[in-house]
Amino acid sequence: MKALVYRGPGSKALEKCPDPALQDPGDAIVRVTRTTICGTDLHILKGDVPSCEPGRILGHEGVGIVESVGTAVTGFVPGDHVLISCITSCGHCDSCRRGMPSHCATGGWILGHLIDGTQAEYVRIPHADTSLYHIPDRVDEDALVMLSDILPTGFECGVLNGKVVPGASVAIVGAGPIGLAALLTARLYSPAAIIMIDIDEERLAMARRFGATATINSQGGTAVEQLMALTGGRGADTVIEAVGIAATFELCEELVAAGGTIANIGVHGTKADLHLERLWDHNIAITTGLVDTVSTPQLLKMVEAKQIDPTPLITHHFAMADILAAYDVFGRAADTKALKVIIGI
Amino acid sequence: MKALVYRGPGSKALEKCPDPALQDPGDAIVRVTRTTICGTDLHILKGDVPSCEPGRILGHEGVGIVESVGTAVTGFVPGDHVLISCITSCGHCDSCRRGMPSHCATGGWILGHLIDGTQAEYVRIPHADTSLYHIPDRVDEDALVMLSDILPTGFECGVLNGKVVPGASVAIVGAGPIGLAALLTARLYSPAAIIMIDIDEERLAMARRFGATATINSQGGTAVEQLMALTGGRGADTVIEAVGIAATFELCEELVAAGGTIANIGVHGTKADLHLERLWDHNIAITTGLVDTVSTPQLLKMVEAKQIDPTPLITHHFAMADILAAYDVFGRAADTKALKVIIGI
Amino acid sequence: MKALVYRGPGSKALEKCPDPALQDPGDAIVRVTRTTICGTDLHILKGDVPSCEPGRILGHEGVGIVESVGTAVTGFVPGDHVLISCITSCGHCDSCRRGMPSHCATGGWILGHLIDGTQAEYVRIPHADTSLYHIPDRVDEDALVMLSDILPTGFECGVLNGKVVPGASVAIVGAGPIGLAALLTARLYSPAAIIMIDIDEERLAMARRFGATATINSQGGTAVEQLMALTGGRGADTVIEAVGIAATFELCEELVAAGGTIANIGVHGTKADLHLERLWDHNIAITTGLVDTVSTPQLLKMVEAKQIDPTPLITHHFAMADILAAYDVFGRAADTKALKVIIGI
Amino acid sequence: MKALVYRGPGSKALEKCPDPALQDPGDAIVRVTRTTICGTDLHILKGDVPSCEPGRILGHEGVGIVESVGTAVTGFVPGDHVLISCITSCGHCDSCRRGMPSHCATGGWILGHLIDGTQAEYVRIPHADTSLYHIPDRVDEDALVMLSDILPTGFECGVLNGKVVPGASVAIVGAGPIGLAALLTARLYSPAAIIMIDIDEERLAMARRFGATATINSQGGTAVEQLMALTGGRGADTVIEAVGIAATFELCEELVAAGGTIANIGVHGTKADLHLERLWDHNIAITTGLVDTVSTPQLLKMVEAKQIDPTPLITHHFAMADILAAYDVFGRAADTKALKVIIGI
Repeated sequence: MKALVYRGPGSKALEKCPDPALQDPGDAIVRVTRTTICGTDLHILKGDVPSCEPGRILGHEGVGIVESVGTAVTGFVPGDHVLISCITSCGHCDSCRRGMPSHCATGGWILGHLIDGTQAEYVRIPHADTSLYHIPDRVDEDALVMLSDILPTGFECGVLNGKVVPGASVAIVGAGPIGLAALLTARLYSPAAIIMIDIDEERLAMARRFGATATINSQGGTAVEQLMALTGGRGADTVIEAVGIAATFELCEELVAAGGTIANIGVHGTKADLHLERLWDHNIAITTGLVDTVSTPQLLKMVEAKQIDPTPLITHHFAMADILAAYDVFGRAADTKALKVIIGI
Repeated sequence: MKALVYRGPGSKALEKCPDPALQDPGDAIVRVTRTTICGTDLHILKGDVPSCEPGRILGHEGVGIVESVGTAVTGFVPGDHVLISCITSCGHCDSCRRGMPSHCATGGWILGHLIDGTQAEYVRIPHADTSLYHIPDRVDEDALVMLSDILPTGFECGVLNGKVVPGASVAIVGAGPIGLAALLTARLYSPAAIIMIDIDEERLAMARRFGATATINSQGGTAVEQLMALTGGRGADTVIEAVGIAATFELCEELVAAGGTIANIGVHGTKADLHLERLWDHNIAITTGLVDTVSTPQLLKMVEAKQIDPTPLITHHFAMADILAAYDVFGRAADTKALKVIIGI
Repeated sequence: MKALVYRGPGSKALEKCPDPALQDPGDAIVRVTRTTICGTDLHILKGDVPSCEPGRILGHEGVGIVESVGTAVTGFVPGDHVLISCITSCGHCDSCRRGMPSHCATGGWILGHLIDGTQAEYVRIPHADTSLYHIPDRVDEDALVMLSDILPTGFECGVLNGKVVPGASVAIVGAGPIGLAALLTARLYSPAAIIMIDIDEERLAMARRFGATATINSQGGTAVEQLMALTGGRGADTVIEAVGIAATFELCEELVAAGGTIANIGVHGTKADLHLERLWDHNIAITTGLVDTVSTPQLLKMVEAKQIDPTPLITHHFAMADILAAYDVFGRAADTKALKVIIGI
Repeated sequence: MKALVYRGPGSKALEKCPDPALQDPGDAIVRVTRTTICGTDLHILKGDVPSCEPGRILGHEGVGIVESVGTAVTGFVPGDHVLISCITSCGHCDSCRRGMPSHCATGGWILGHLIDGTQAEYVRIPHADTSLYHIPDRVDEDALVMLSDILPTGFECGVLNGKVVPGASVAIVGAGPIGLAALLTARLYSPAAIIMIDIDEERLAMARRFGATATINSQGGTAVEQLMALTGGRGADTVIEAVGIAATFELCEELVAAGGTIANIGVHGTKADLHLERLWDHNIAITTGLVDTVSTPQLLKMVEAKQIDPTPLITHHFAMADILAAYDVFGRAADTKALKVIIGI
């Protein structure tokens, strides 16, 4: 089969690889019909994720059709249309039993990382019963690719951790795909204000189309003052960090209202300064987290009921043969205005 | 009357002052019968709290007897025995309505800080209906002084924010009075392990008497390894910071289990390093907070029902005339083994 | 002043009454500018509420302008535009401290019940600081009258007690004003389905205009089958009872999914059968409750932010001089299609 | 092997049966070393559970040693000491994913009901990875049998559903094994009062030994008055129904405080009267539920940490050969003072 293979820092190739085979009774082989590229894939290619070794097929998102299942799989049969979760879950380790499969003892984020991933014609999915989801009929399958990772991440790590409630104020720092996914899913709770903060006017315009009630360009250094003006001097009840650098996290510390929450989604490579000398009596919470994808069934229902429409996140389509071009477009998002790119296989 | 007056950094005096008078219809004047000294009072004396101006009568804890009430007070009459909360609450500002009187628009921590406090024969309590509590009969009034601040602080900022649940593991960094108050109230939720961490062997011995299931002396630099050994390599589900310096907060970051919570109680004067490069995918929460004292009615019931016995926190008794000696003993806690000192007036 | 006075079962009159005067330091006198009639007022007039004695001015909803305040009132001054809560709250009794002012020791539902109410030119509001709310500028004051009772009741007793979450299914039994208020506020949580059940086709058509995703006419006796067909045989996650008779409550017992909640809003005059022989292992919750109006600040923000538009609930307008006609129209709702009627004063 | 077989209403026998064999890849065969008898087994024998057909081996509780595992089982190997949960959980159906395995599509309560159970030398456990638990070393295995059903049932359906919190008042109606299990686990939350209500003085004496702070004999018809006297006229914050008849459920309705919860554990065969005419404005919750056993890992930790000692629940021991005598003793509990009987195999 054809697959996109990581060949070490800075190097990738579309190669012919052996088809994956069932290894464990709980495995399924899925013929991938659509996949996408994640910012994490770019991190791997930069060499930032040493646990991902050269030779690895990348990709942890996608939908497809079950090709074959191991003897222990009871929930799926060949021919089933399925959503692939970015998180593999055994369903019975301590972490899975407590609803935290991101830390599954034999799963978690392994696809396109520790085992071969979805940017391929076929992929082996371990623990298939607890890591795949039946796809409802009559739902746009492009849209469903957004449910592998980006929507549950925005929803769980941003909106649920951030405790967004009706009538509250929400600030989101970072209007990239993940910040916009947080915006889309924050709207499910009807906050009174959703204020998007970024340095790119085009992305801020996009955020307004996605439903932001106000936007702030933080380049001028007055983001805090502007947000305070918009929130009656109180700050935002929920602040979502969707960038992943120290400066933006530290900005969140200045934006959060007393009694509020900073929900971190960003993948950080360095420490940040935590200004406890100001925050110790501010009654705030800070949360971190890799997505557990436990909200996937709920999100599927909402997409099916048209409560969420993830399609505006999709800006480009490519065929598998053009996946290197897809990487190029996605990697130059500032120029290409790319959010998520769909690769049809 | 006699009162302990702050005279600027490094200076205090037991002075003769005018008796306080009712100013607002919601005020009560309370004759203080017992008060105590808080670590915060020492901070003020060091000059760390510039909002507290020279001339201020210190103290925000105590019990007493209502002497007179303003025309708007409906819940108390002269002669009532009362507990004074360290937090003054108007009951109707935005913060109070949402259960966060620590940030009350006209209250919060003001006693012995922005208005005269309880280390005096009489004290004026604004918003008396929402800032005083009736004392049950037949309960040791020394014990109740612990309910003005230290027990609700340990309980709310440590145990409740830290989400201690039955069967969980709890680590507390700092075996001073507030750490021990967190320990006492953590036991209300029957965690499987309560591990106290400090650098003072005498305090650790005290923690074991208070019910710690294990103790760690962090001086050797192996606190993390020892805690991991005690928790099967997972870390603690709840980590309570009860010191207030960057080093101890940063230790907490290494002690917390995936999915766990760091509940900060310490009063910090400087920033700490937040190691997001390690914690971003650790699914943790960090909480900060000044106490709201909303748990006071619940704690009163528990002291009355003998579910909590705060008396072991009380190590010394003084008369008001000897309050300078009380400050001396409390200020040299490492030598004197003082936890809380009761000043009878 | 003119006021609508209850004169015993079946009897009411628009009468000239003495203006109310301040009695307690916490009182405010409010000049009522808009009020409305509640189903409860009709209950009183039928003689169903014996605690309401003849001579009582009715009404517990309204907006107005503060005329005067007692010496203890700190949050309001004459001239302030205010929303009157149907629940009077002292802010400091046990019930108020735990967020349940519906059971306030000296308040609760007393307006137009145990003390004179809002269907008058002036009304005395006890505990004004904790029972009135500042009205934002530029918000339609007719709409705000819906925040005195009906919207917080639908939201707190129906939506919050019923634990509506994004993607869930909600069934509401009873498409009267309170059922529609529950529908409006349920939408704040983006459920995948909101199914309204009633016996009146006109009300069901109205429910569809308010956003119901499906409606069921229960007259044919197949409501359960229809709901099961709409929910894949599972039943509804949240079932809201908004009628108040045994038959409708018992219908709710058949509609609720395993793991779901029945949130009762209806005012019941008789017992209902609880089919524990079927429900004991169904993992459900049933909730009851008088509204606490603790969500009023949140609802105000949402009306201000146009997250909720309560104006479709208002079907008729009357002048105070025509309040008897307003009662007639509201009392014959099936004929007049009345939901809520605004009385301008 | 020898096993206790249900032979139709009123009839059971200790018979020689074929050893169970692996059927599905997720199965395990467990050699049972200890089992017990549940009140539900008596219900089956009375013919109250028609879904249980003659020929069925009874029993849904026990500990044992894994004899063999199917090819899909990854969490257990032959020789492992295990606790058998009364609830079989597939881990991936809708109910299991939402933490409600009591309603698992292919599991739930099936052991000793729809498939052969644990009152046998060997038992087949489907979905072994998610339905068995590793037993800690050095823990009394008799005690662990109490974790198959009775302790998680008392804890989840009584204490957690009933929202017991530190300082609260708890009333438990029914001092049988399940009521006492609720009492034992309620203590984990340090309520200020635990009041046991029963008609048997010996059971009430037992409840006091288990830690009840007060007991009420309800035979005189003054249980409500006595409870009100003990709770300052307020009623109990949590009321746990542990009998399963209409009269006791209706008693709970009179005992519950405003704002409180009635947590039903009892298995009911008939409807009860729900006095909504009194409860509609009482702000209560009523919960029902079959146990999910999701608290089993937590309870195992607490037994291991000696936070709970379930051994006082065990009153009798029998060998497998004497299981008919065990049934006789357990069935005549009023005479024999039996709580739980251990059958060693």
